Amino acid sequence: MSNTTTPLPQKISQIALIVRDIETTALQYAQLFGVDMPQVIITDGQDKTHMLHKGKASDARAKLAFFHLENITIELIEPIGAPSTWQEHLDQVGEGVHHIAFDVADIKQTEQELAKQGYSVEQLGDFEGGCYSYINATDRLKLQIELLAPPRS
Amino acid sequence: MSNTTTPLPQKISQIALIVRDIETTALQYAQLFGVDMPQVIITDGQDKTHMLHKGKASDARAKLAFFHLENITIELIEPIGAPSTWQEHLDQVGEGVHHIAFDVADIKQTEQELAKQGYSVEQLGDFEGGCYSYINATDRLKLQIELLAPPRS
Repeated sequence: MSNTTTPLPQKISQIALIVRDIETTALQYAQLFGVDMPQVIITDGQDKTHMLHKGKASDARAKLAFFHLENITIELIEPIGAPSTWQEHLDQVGEGVHHIAFDVADIKQTEQELAKQGYSVEQLGDFEGGCYSYINATDRLKLQIELLAPPRS
Repeated sequence: MSNTTTPLPQKISQIALIVRDIETTALQYAQLFGVDMPQVIITDGQDKTHMLHKGKASDARAKLAFFHLENITIELIEPIGAPSTWQEHLDQVGEGVHHIAFDVADIKQTEQELAKQGYSVEQLGDFEGGCYSYINATDRLKLQIELLAPPRS
């Protein structure tokens, strides 16, 4: 394939699913892959995440669990509270894949380049050691795009 | 993570989405990744695929398009006709991720090992150069598992 200018690397770092009961589903994945049950973590509060959903601060959180495979990570997400893109997906679509994630160096620049293509930020936030933005691409790509980057400067 | 016996490799080869209009959605992916529009192919007929859906021969087909990224391939699938797991997903869930795929050496053996864990084959078929089986894991893993293997002997 010929490459032209694109804001995204051609590598998917994570595939993430929304689930209703993370402990139950994580156990199924652990058994399937023959690995230990991963630790389930809970995202921080608004004071640390500065989470924005559709441009407005939200107190929503999520439980997360990760399965690090050889070439990609499977992430399970159980929404806690609302509003969030996680809870909206569960309410409107149900359980299943919510997004694929890409590691980028400069999240602001990538957001701006995607905005030129008509893609907008649905939700964003910080976590220990990094930050994320969800790009709403459901209409065009049939899933959302997550940008993962170093901490915002 | 500690490994015990597992029938699947810890590497995902494909992530596949069901779409309503493959040319439109493939163009969106091509533009996002800055690559050429991929060729859209149509699966063969029953005489070549020997496709079974829930154990019964089906004449359903699909249009397929592939984006080969560095670490994984994105597959788009537009169902043609029924019955198929592709059309059922479109009817019951809508557009979005249907399965993740794993390359296995012996598809029969892998099916049998997964059967011991309670997973059953939802659909299977042959294609030029190989064969596939979809394992229905929607209840437990929130998506289906595809096994990809060399041609059935």
